Formats: sequence, C-alpha cells, structure tokens
Amino acid sequence: MRIDDLDTPVLTADLDAVERNISRMQRYCDEHGLALRPHVKTHKLPELARLQVDAGARGIACQKLGEAEIFADAGFDDILISFPLIGQAKIARLRALAERARVCVAVDSDEGLDALAGADVGVLVECDTGGGRTGVQSPEAAANLAARTKRLRGLMTYPMPPGAGAWLRRALDLIGDVQTVSVGGTPTAHTAHELGVATELRVGTYVYGDRASLAGGVTTLEDCALRVLATVVSTPTRDRAILDAGTKALTSDPASGADGFGLLVEHPEAAVYRLNEEHGIVDVSRSERPPRIGDRVSVVPNHACGATNLHDEIVLHRDGIVVETLPIRARGRIR
Amino acid sequence: MRIDDLDTPVLTADLDAVERNISRMQRYCDEHGLALRPHVKTHKLPELARLQVDAGARGIACQKLGEAEIFADAGFDDILISFPLIGQAKIARLRALAERARVCVAVDSDEGLDALAGADVGVLVECDTGGGRTGVQSPEAAANLAARTKRLRGLMTYPMPPGAGAWLRRALDLIGDVQTVSVGGTPTAHTAHELGVATELRVGTYVYGDRASLAGGVTTLEDCALRVLATVVSTPTRDRAILDAGTKALTSDPASGADGFGLLVEHPEAAVYRLNEEHGIVDVSRSERPPRIGDRVSVVPNHACGATNLHDEIVLHRDGIVVETLPIRARGRIR
Repeated sequence: MRIDDLDTPVLTADLDAVERNISRMQRYCDEHGLALRPHVKTHKLPELARLQVDAGARGIACQKLGEAEIFADAGFDDILISFPLIGQAKIARLRALAERARVCVAVDSDEGLDALAGADVGVLVECDTGGGRTGVQSPEAAANLAARTKRLRGLMTYPMPPGAGAWLRRALDLIGDVQTVSVGGTPTAHTAHELGVATELRVGTYVYGDRASLAGGVTTLEDCALRVLATVVSTPTRDRAILDAGTKALTSDPASGADGFGLLVEHPEAAVYRLNEEHGIVDVSRSERPPRIGDRVSVVPNHACGATNLHDEIVLHRDGIVVETLPIRARGRIR
Repeated sequence: MRIDDLDTPVLTADLDAVERNISRMQRYCDEHGLALRPHVKTHKLPELARLQVDAGARGIACQKLGEAEIFADAGFDDILISFPLIGQAKIARLRALAERARVCVAVDSDEGLDALAGADVGVLVECDTGGGRTGVQSPEAAANLAARTKRLRGLMTYPMPPGAGAWLRRALDLIGDVQTVSVGGTPTAHTAHELGVATELRVGTYVYGDRASLAGGVTTLEDCALRVLATVVSTPTRDRAILDAGTKALTSDPASGADGFGLLVEHPEAAVYRLNEEHGIVDVSRSERPPRIGDRVSVVPNHACGATNLHDEIVLHRDGIVVETLPIRARGRIR
C-alpha cells in the first residue's frame, strides 16, 4: 500500500529519513564524547526509541511520568524525567517506576527535592541558563541545592543560550565533579560540545524535523521525516483553498522563523494562514496552478512534538510505500 | 471524592453549569422558534449530547465523519456533518452511516455534491456570508448549486457576520422555500433570530464556555463549566510560576479578546504568557501572594473545543464533588 492511498488527514513519517537523522545525531555525539539521550516526547513511540538506543543512545528522556511508565513497560530501563515531580500521587508512581528502571529526575527547588525523599532515583539540578522557564537562577543556587542531596548525578539545562557553558562551569566549580551535565535542544544540538562542560545531549525533534527545524536551518526538506497528509476539500475562491487538516491535525503551535501553520510541500508558494479545528485555510493567490478539490497535499507541521500528540497513530513508510502503522502509545500522557 | 484530590493536570466540567447552559440556550431557541442542533465537537461526549437532546435539541452537528460514527454508535439518529466530505473512503463510510441515521451533509462545490451521488443523505448548501472559510461565494452560486440536487434541505452558514441575514434572504428568494436555514456560532448565538431567516441554530461552545466566551461577554465565570486543574511545580523567581499544564493540556489556541493562554481563576491578576508542551509559564509579578510550589490552580482554557480534544477523559463534578469520569469518546476523530 502507498501512503497516497491512505484516507486523510493522516500522520506519516519517512523511515529512511528517521534512520538518517538518528544516525547523524549519534555520530555527532560519538565524535564529541557526548552521551545521547533522545527525548521521546517527539515521537512517543517505543519502536523508534528502540532504534535510537540500538544506534548507541544512552537511555531516554521523558517529559512526564506517564510517558516514562509507557516506555518502562516497553523495556526501557534508563530514564530521565526532565520535569519537576510534585504531589503525593506522582511520587507514589515514581517509586513504583524506580523499582523497574534506573530513573533520574530534574529538580529545581527545595520542595522538589524534599518530595523525592525515599524514592530510589538520581537527581539532576535543573539550571535556568537563560531559557526563562524552570531551573535555579544562579550557579550558587545550583550548588546549594546540589549540596542538599546524596543522590546528585549532576546538572541539566534547556535550551543552550550563549553563556550557558560559563554558567554551568561556574556551578561545577562550586559543586565539584559530577557524573552528568545534560544539555538539550535540537536547534543548537550541534554546538553542545562547544559548551565545554556537557556530558550528555537531550534532543527530541531531530528524529523527525519540523517546520521550525527547516526555518532554523538544522534540517533539510529531504531529511524532514514528518508529514500530515491532507486533502483539499473546498476552493471557495481562486485564491483560497481549504484542507481537511486544522488544529486537530497540525496544532496551532507557531514555528519560530516562519509564518503560518505548516509548509505545503507541493505548493511552497502557498501559505496556511489560518486554522480552525478541522479546516486549514490556505492562501493560494501566488500559485500558478492552485490545488483543486480532491488534490492531496503533504504538510510539514510547525512543531513535531505537538503534532504527534494529536494523532492516535502514525504511518511509517519508505519512498511512499507503507511499512507499518504504529499506535502512538505515549500520546496524551499529560500526568 | 473531591476534584481537589485528583492528580493534575486534569480536565473537569461543572455539571450544574453545563445544565444551566443547556437549559438557557434551549430556552432561547424555543422562544424564537429555532431548532437547536448542538455541535458536539465541543464536548465529544454522547452523555452530554443526550442531555442536550433530552432538553429539546433537534439533533446534533458533527464536524467530522469519525465523530458522527461515534455518536451514531451511541444511538443518535439525526446528524448534520458540517464539513465537506471528499474522497471515496469517506463516501463509503457515509453510506454506511446513512443506513443507521438520518444524515445531512454540507456542500459548497459541484465536486462535493457529485461525491454524494448515491448516498442517502440530505444536502445543505454552505454559504460564505463573510466568514472567509468554506462556502459558496454568492447567493446566485448557492442557488445554482441548490438547483443541482434533489436532496436539498436548505442552507448553512458559519459564523453570522453582519449582512448574513440579507445574504441568505437573497439566496432564498432565488431558491424558494427550503426546510432548513442553519446558522451557527456561540459568540453571536443570541442574535440568530434577528437574521429573520434562520430555522436552526448550531452551537457548541455554549455548553462549557471558555476564555473566549468570557472575553466576548457571552458567559460568566460561574457559568463557565470547563477547567483544567493544574499544580504549581516550580517558582524559579518571585515573578514567575510554572504550571504542570502546557499545550498538551490547554492547546496553544489563542482567545479572541484576551492575551495569553488561559485564565487562572484563583489568580486573575496573573498572566499565562507562554506555554511549552508540559509547562505553563505564568507572570505573577502583580500577585500580592504569588502561588507556591504545590498549590493547585484552575485554568479556564482559551478554547473549549481544542482543550477537550487533548484529553482522554473529563471529570464531571457538582460543587467540587466528583460525579463521574467519562472517556472523551470522540476525541481525536480527525477523519
């Protein structure tokens, strides 16, 4: 069966491109002595994580405990949960998880550290090196938190803004040697070695690529594996075409460096300028041959991780020939 | 059990508010001689659609065939699919659906009409009265398309911009009497009778309300039934708090008339200014008593339909006491 025969909208990934992406990132890490810990939030598929680990990855990173449970069920035994775990219900589940896998958890507060008491897990102190999200605010604060636990494995940051290396170096000077300095983010992945302190790279999006990766110049269209296949269902005017893929197939996530809501591969001159839940509204005014009702198009989503989370399944293919349809087992694991 | 005891993030709906919303919209329709056809894309729950039909609704509207199939399975037998159905796979499923329910389909093109040949379904000609999405572009085009089918039930439009009434009246002058003139959209629902031509109102969001409804003044916080309960998992600075609810719990959908990504009920002075998949990043600089790690908060999502589509289940409650947890059966039905 060809992917052209699938009903739309449908999420697909080019397995050849996936394998190239896995191989390239592993090679980069090997060349620079970095452990690779793929973030499985991008694909949410044990099957692809297996390819990543078989290619040499150290273990996996999960954003949520519910994802980690799915991957532990699938036999993965080295798991970083890169999100603060707060609340009794989560800690009870974490303890159970730690009985069947080596688990490490990100911590950025006294409360977060105290919550882990009694759970057999390692600790990475999360550092805000400029991302402005979670993380302790100074190398001194990192050292203070690190000093409070006997389970310290090291430090973690995301993303890697300029200055992140010096920030982490200062913290290490205060703390002393640690096992792990984990840094993350596909857009700047290939600069991780330049930080001078990283031992581990956490990246997710690289496995598929997306429109943000294209806009950032870190992938090519050929290596960008992910597509939402869609059908033109209406052409109300010469300049407007409507796809059967909206926010429920693509998300309304923006792509840094690109306008609109996806790249139409067959019509790069067109702009997906508005989405409703089921409608993708496309400006085809610049198309010499605008798409017609019934035409099929391939959309590169703005954000791979967000798009994946919307779909119950993904169709893997090689050269357009369907290889396998996989349930996206860790989809929707928000707790 | 109280909803305060549920692990977070979790989607909840206040059943008392839901019932008030259903009753109020039904009363409006009854007073103005309009049939009410709730759009089930908002809740995706046969159980709530049953409440709507029991309160007097004519039938239901679905955006996708896959939603219609779920609701037909649950016994609903009067279904409008308000989206063009294009492609053989969809038409085969439509025929099967039409054997167990009265089905009507929106059409805005010759191709869309031709595709329905042989399916035992009614046809509504979709009219673009200013929304700029799908729909024929003029009353004359509506009349031409209407003249091509013996299965015509009437006209449909969404939303209802100024001039929609005159547009539809002109089309009816050309076409003659029809059974149904279906108009839609919660924001302007209570002006449907002023169009002078509507026989049916399609609305979805009214059942829950959301931040856009609040911003538009069409609901109150008390009647806004939907909340995502979240936990503060990090407070990296005095002015920043991080929730365990990001785009995977709230969507990155914007709310017309409001900035950011959700209303924090307990901290209306705070702003959810950025979301990542699992992180809600909140500016609490204006909070006299900013939330602390472990605090629970209630978030009114920007967009009820989008948020619902992310969650596998919803917890219904009255006054905070859990009544029932329902699987969101039509979630993710994108085809």
